[in-house]
This record gives sequence, structure tokens and C-alpha cells, in this order.
Amino acid sequence: MTEIVITSEITVELIDTMGGDKSVSRAAWVRKDFTPPTPKSTTEGVIGTMMEKRHGTPFEAACFQFHVHAPIKVWREHHRHRIGWSYNEESGRYKTLEPVFYVPPRDRPIIRPEGFKSMNPKFNTILDDGEYEGMVREMKEAYADAYNTYELLLAKGVDRGLARDVLGVGIYSSCITTCNARSLMAFLELRTTEETAKRPSKPLYEIEVVARKYEAFFAERMPVTYAAWVRGGRMAP
Amino acid sequence: MTEIVITSEITVELIDTMGGDKSVSRAAWVRKDFTPPTPKSTTEGVIGTMMEKRHGTPFEAACFQFHVHAPIKVWREHHRHRIGWSYNEESGRYKTLEPVFYVPPRDRPIIRPEGFKSMNPKFNTILDDGEYEGMVREMKEAYADAYNTYELLLAKGVDRGLARDVLGVGIYSSCITTCNARSLMAFLELRTTEETAKRPSKPLYEIEVVARKYEAFFAERMPVTYAAWVRGGRMAP
Amino acid sequence: MTEIVITSEITVELIDTMGGDKSVSRAAWVRKDFTPPTPKSTTEGVIGTMMEKRHGTPFEAACFQFHVHAPIKVWREHHRHRIGWSYNEESGRYKTLEPVFYVPPRDRPIIRPEGFKSMNPKFNTILDDGEYEGMVREMKEAYADAYNTYELLLAKGVDRGLARDVLGVGIYSSCITTCNARSLMAFLELRTTEETAKRPSKPLYEIEVVARKYEAFFAERMPVTYAAWVRGGRMAP
Amino acid sequence: MTEIVITSEITVELIDTMGGDKSVSRAAWVRKDFTPPTPKSTTEGVIGTMMEKRHGTPFEAACFQFHVHAPIKVWREHHRHRIGWSYNEESGRYKTLEPVFYVPPRDRPIIRPEGFKSMNPKFNTILDDGEYEGMVREMKEAYADAYNTYELLLAKGVDRGLARDVLGVGIYSSCITTCNARSLMAFLELRTTEETAKRPSKPLYEIEVVARKYEAFFAERMPVTYAAWVRGGRMAP
Repeated sequence: MTEIVITSEITVELIDTMGGDKSVSRAAWVRKDFTPPTPKSTTEGVIGTMMEKRHGTPFEAACFQFHVHAPIKVWREHHRHRIGWSYNEESGRYKTLEPVFYVPPRDRPIIRPEGFKSMNPKFNTILDDGEYEGMVREMKEAYADAYNTYELLLAKGVDRGLARDVLGVGIYSSCITTCNARSLMAFLELRTTEETAKRPSKPLYEIEVVARKYEAFFAERMPVTYAAWVRGGRMAP
Repeated sequence: MTEIVITSEITVELIDTMGGDKSVSRAAWVRKDFTPPTPKSTTEGVIGTMMEKRHGTPFEAACFQFHVHAPIKVWREHHRHRIGWSYNEESGRYKTLEPVFYVPPRDRPIIRPEGFKSMNPKFNTILDDGEYEGMVREMKEAYADAYNTYELLLAKGVDRGLARDVLGVGIYSSCITTCNARSLMAFLELRTTEETAKRPSKPLYEIEVVARKYEAFFAERMPVTYAAWVRGGRMAP
Repeated sequence: MTEIVITSEITVELIDTMGGDKSVSRAAWVRKDFTPPTPKSTTEGVIGTMMEKRHGTPFEAACFQFHVHAPIKVWREHHRHRIGWSYNEESGRYKTLEPVFYVPPRDRPIIRPEGFKSMNPKFNTILDDGEYEGMVREMKEAYADAYNTYELLLAKGVDRGLARDVLGVGIYSSCITTCNARSLMAFLELRTTEETAKRPSKPLYEIEVVARKYEAFFAERMPVTYAAWVRGGRMAP
Repeated sequence: MTEIVITSEITVELIDTMGGDKSVSRAAWVRKDFTPPTPKSTTEGVIGTMMEKRHGTPFEAACFQFHVHAPIKVWREHHRHRIGWSYNEESGRYKTLEPVFYVPPRDRPIIRPEGFKSMNPKFNTILDDGEYEGMVREMKEAYADAYNTYELLLAKGVDRGLARDVLGVGIYSSCITTCNARSLMAFLELRTTEETAKRPSKPLYEIEVVARKYEAFFAERMPVTYAAWVRGGRMAP
């Protein structure tokens, strides 16, 4: 019987990129006539104008590729972003899934308060130490039992595409994701929660962890675009 | 402790449509000059020519909407069809998931034979009665334990988006899917296995169940397009 | 020598639909748990919530199909809407294009005022009668000369895909367009100009003519969705 | 009166890329279990298998960006490729279009033979010298007249988005195009004509010029993928 691993860590690695702020301004310049030079004709000016006027296509000129390790429940939501996103995820049919499962970190807000409204969830209560440990123990036990059954079925020769049915959506899976700056901003707008956002969102905690790591890479690689996006209330153009 | 339901039934209901073969030929006629009338200028002729020459856009002129009840593992694959597909699936964050879980039907080929090759899976061995019953018992037990933990966590006030992590991908979920005849053919090409297909595919058994039910509705509603697609080796234009 | 036709009329005919407001609320209900019934659980309530919270996918559950007759310059912009739009347009390779050309209606604002800024165009000046007639005469003459050359080349046996190179983008072309309520709202947000819009747009006059005709059909067929969209500042969810 | 330029040159410049064959095999490896190492586990083997089995998503992991200068009639067709393609094209509303127009090169097959069938065009007849020169003269004259009218209207203050209506689709326009290896193969499959193609296509001459230049960059940057695609009959996975 295999020992399972439980973890709260969700990782995002930037593995490739194409272009950056300069790609956006170059794409924008092809479309418009900014001559004779004006203050707007700098990279900052052009990107600011494109963002403000919602000319979105120039932002498709810069690309990112990530390697993400996250629970299946995150992928269930992530894959719903269809446009400008490419996915290559571990297959549960072709691979034996590794016994790595998600438990929430100590500071994840988890208690559904009284008067919970589904469209406006508020998770602001933290468990006390005993409650937290109890919950983690329950989850771990359920994961371990399921993985045990999984291995038992595989040992009998049952195909992986069937045996995995018992594995919870808390199991980890790796995926390479490819996007452009525009589709990334659309993702971030919906999958982060921020006071300053013009259109606030209430994402699942775990997908926000992924989004925040994406956002850090985005801010670092495309500072001008990132600043314009934040200034505009975090709305994708 | 809630009694769970296990079932092998996967259902597809056709809930709405737009147009059909006539929509395809009308769309094709806008594009081309088929006058003066020739044998090709009938609906059959036009659709046959469009299919053969891979003019795909006229097939986007007819739409289908389905209500599908299937295990999450099916949705995991289905949602990867990004283009020409719209999805509205039950949310595990906003709803308490019902205790309905998948077990394979008696005649599903399940034993991974010796020499299994991941990219060319062959599932032709059937379990004997005792083996089948043993497997179902194992799966049911794992599902029931997981659902028990799920309810326990919910009872403590843990939010649904976290508690569901222990639930296996064999749990059922409902989804309304919307597509057009072109995106439907692309789905069927990949998600059915057929001797006569020019580009054979090896889909997961359970997604093929969905695909076959889609195919029956497609054949009934768009007989001319369907016949042309089969004749052409089941390749999406 | 063929007599050309000049016209200012741009037509949109609704030729098919799938579903409407009820399709949106049905799709939304699959996703969420609105029971026990609350004020929000009416069609109005559900659609309002979906729009406000930017849950966009339920709006993909209703479809529209139009037959549009418009100048090529309109298609040049329209075809840039890639997602959730299908097109079947007259082919200039397979058909001999008809001699129908666009001239602006008497009340189209046309004079580029002093200090014109490309990203913030203001067209508020109207020509006087003589200027307008002069302009129309110039355009008509240019169209007629071009069409004359087109026919001359065709008569020599030059293929249509080459001979049409001389025809101006003011020539008319027919197209069947298919979309869903979500992609339609995204189009209307960008292709209409309205005081009450949260994110104002400055579309080309002629594409706004198409957009306004789309909008009238949309308002009539999906009054609840339309009202929620207007109330929310004409932003696509 | 501005002197117009006529040319047969259509140019494609590769301005940026992300990844290549290695990106494809890395994306494929995430999905499948190719261990223990087999002949298939090399980059060649993995890419060959992905192509043959039509696992298309790994090919979305490598990107290309081009700067293309081509007549508007080419853009009319190119923009119809909606998925996996981003465009930033010169605007006829915001820029005054330059007086550069297309005429066919001497060796372009142009005569529509007797018995021309629209869905199966054959262009194998070449004009004699006198005919060719006559045709070019006609085209140039039509272009020059139209451009003259364009400038006249602009001089009167007519906005560019209206004045350009008289300009033929043979006028040149610049566009930055961004795609991935999968969407590029889909483009090449439809926009080149090749004896060895499993599904032959009859593209417009001028778009094939663009496609062939894309193809050369593709072959150079991704030799393993390119070879597998050619071997498989030039069908996009």
C-alpha cells in the first residue's frame, strides 16, 4: 500500500515567452497612424490608449507558457477558459496518477458563515487549530482509502481510465498552459479578487493561487501593460 | 449517513435545435454560384460538395443543445473541446453534489491486456461475473466513504468548493451543451471508434456513450449532412 | 456596359433563432442552486444576476442567424469578430459580383473636422446639398469605371478572383451570420455608440447600421436579457 | 495627383517565435507516459505519434509572428481563419492608405478555361505578352483613377472610413499575424495546393504566395514537426 503525499503547495513555473510590451506597441502601430509623434506615440502612451479604448488585439501579440501543478478541481475551472488558451495536461487514461493530494493551508478561509449566499460567497472565518487538524485528517484518510482502491483495481488489470473514477478531485495533475497577454488578463480579471477591480470577482481560493502566480510573471515581463491594466480597474481589453 | 446511488446510465436529451440540412445548403448557396441549376444544386449535391471540398463554415449554420448527465471524468474530456461548444455545468462550489456515482455496465471491456500500449489501447477482455461484482463492490465502497467524508465536512461548515475535493471523478454532474453541426462532427470524429473511419480514434468508453447518443440525434435531425459525413469517412469538414 | 446601382440601404433579416431568455435561465439553473425559491429565482432575477456577476456562458445558450447585405468595408470589420460568430459570405472567386455600390445617406456625418484625432473621431458636420451631391457623383463615377474594368477583364477570360481586385470596398456583399446572445452583446458593445454605455465606443457609421438592426431583433426576442444588458451599461458579460 | 505604385510582390517577414519542436514534445510528454524509454520516446517519435493519432494540442505550444504585406483581397480570406490566429492590420479609418496596388506576376495562371467549374477551378493558361500587358494597363488605370478620387474626397475633408470605399481590394495593407503551429498547419492545409496532400485544396493564387512563405519559415524552425506533417499528407492534427 502506497503512502500518499498531502500538500498545500500549488506551483507555477514560467517556461517560455514570446515578446512583451514592445510587441503590443508594434502591433498597435501597424493599425494606427500615430505620426507625427505625440506624447501618445511612446510605448506607454500607445499601450495606455489601447487599454483605455479596448483595442484588444494588440495584446494578443505577446505569449506566455507555464508549467502548473495543481489539484484537478483547479483544472476543472481553468479549462473553461476556451479562447486564447492551450492546454496539455497529464492524462488519467495513459498514466498512473501519482498519490499527491491537496489539503488547504492553515490560513485558507474555509468556514461557510451563516447566511451564505451562493452568488456572493464570503469566506472569512478561520478554523481553530483543532478543527483544522481534524479536517486535514479526514481529508487525508479519504484520499488514502481512495488511492488504495485505485491501486487495487489497477493490480487486477482494470484500465486506468476506469480505476481513476474513485480518485477525488483533490488529486494533483500537471499541465502546460499557453496563452497570450489578452487571454491572460481575461483570466486574471475573473480569477482574482481585488478591492480596486471595477468588476469584482469571487474566485475559488485555489485557482486564485494559480492566478496570483501568473500575475507576478505578467507584471515582471510586461510592466507597461500590467500597469495600464491595473490603472484601468483590472478589466481585460 | 446518506445512501449513495450507483448507476451505469449516462443520459443525453436533445433540448433545442436551430435549423438543419436546409440551413447548411442555404449558407452554402450564399457563398457560391450554383446557377444555372445542375445536379449539384440540390440540397444533397451542395452538402456533398461542401463536405468533400472541406468548406466547413456552412455546417456552422445549424445548432444543437443537449442536456447531459455523466460522470465528471467525461466532462474532463468533453470540456477540452473549446471551439464551437458552450457549456453550463453544475457547480461544485454553489451546489451540494448529489450522491450519484458511476460504475461500468456489465459488458464494458475493462481488463487492460498484457502489452498494453498507451497510445493504442485495446480493451477487449470482459471480466467474469465474480470479478465484475468484486470490482463494483470496491468502487461503491470507495464512493460511499468519500461521500460520507464530504457530508461530514459540510456539516462542520466547510465550504463546498473545498469539501468536494474528496469526491471521485466518478460522481455525476449535469451539463447543458450547445454546439453547431461542424463542432459536433469534430467531436464525433474523435470520440467514437468506427471501422469505417478514415482516421480511427480510441476514445474513452464513457465519452463514446455520450458521442453515440449525440450521433443518433444528429443522424435524425440532419440526415443529408450525416450521410455525407459517414460517406466521407467520418471526417469533420 | 452594365449600369451600376448605388444605394445607402444596408439590410439585416433575422432568418433563424434558437431559444431566448428561457434558455439563458435554464442554463444558469443547471449551474447554481437557487432553491429554495427566492426573488432571484425568477427568470428576471437569474438573468440579472448572471449579467451583473459576469457569468457569461448561460448567454451562449440562445442563438441568432441573420442575412445581411452590406458593403465589403463592413465585412472587413465584422469578420474580425472571431469568437462565437460564423460567417458564410458571397465569394468573389466563385461568383460574379453584382454591380451594387454604397454611397452615404444624406444625413451621415462625414466631414472630418479640424483637429481630428484618430483614436477619438468626431463626425458631427454635415455637408450642404451641393457638396453632398458632388461627393456622391464622384463616388458613383469611380465605382462605375471600376466595374467597367471588371467586366472587361472577365470578358477576356480573366478569373474572377483576379478581376475583382479593381472593385472598391464599397461594393455590396451578402453574408449569413450566426452568433449567440453573448457574442452578439460583445459585438454591440463595440459597434454602437451610446451615451449610457459604460465603455463608450466610436464605431464606423456603416457597421453601426448593422449593429442597430441586430440590436432591434435582440431586444424583441430576448427582452429580459436585453434590459439587463442595457441596465448594466451595455457591457457584454 | 499622386503617382501610384503597382507591384506583384507579396512579402512575409518572421518577426518573432516561441519554442519549436522541443516545445511540442515537452507538451506531449506531460500528457502521456512514455517511460520506460522506447524508440517512440525521442522527439521524432513523440511528434510522429502525436501527428498520426491527431493529438493536436501539443502543436499549440509553439508560436510564430509574421509581418505580412499583401493586397486586401488576401486579408479578406486570411481573416476567415478565426481560431489560433491574431491579427493587427492597418486601419483604413485611422490611416491614409498608401497608393500601392497589386498586379499579377507574369507567370500567374489567369485565364479561366472553358468549362470552368466554380468548385474545382483550374487555372493553367498563361496570357501571351500582349494580353498580359493589356491587362496590367487596365488594372493600373482603374487603380489610379480610384486613388485619385480617394485623394480628392480626403482633400474635401471626407473621413477616411468613407473615402476609401472607392479603393479596390487590390490595394496593399500590412498586418501582423500571430499563430501557433497547429493553427498554421490548418492554414497551410487549406491555402496551398500540393499533389501529395491527402485532401487537395484549390486556394487563391495570392494567398498561396503568403502560405508558401509561412511554410518555408515553419519548415526551417520546426523541421521535425514539418516532416511529420508532410509525411502524413499535409493534414493538420
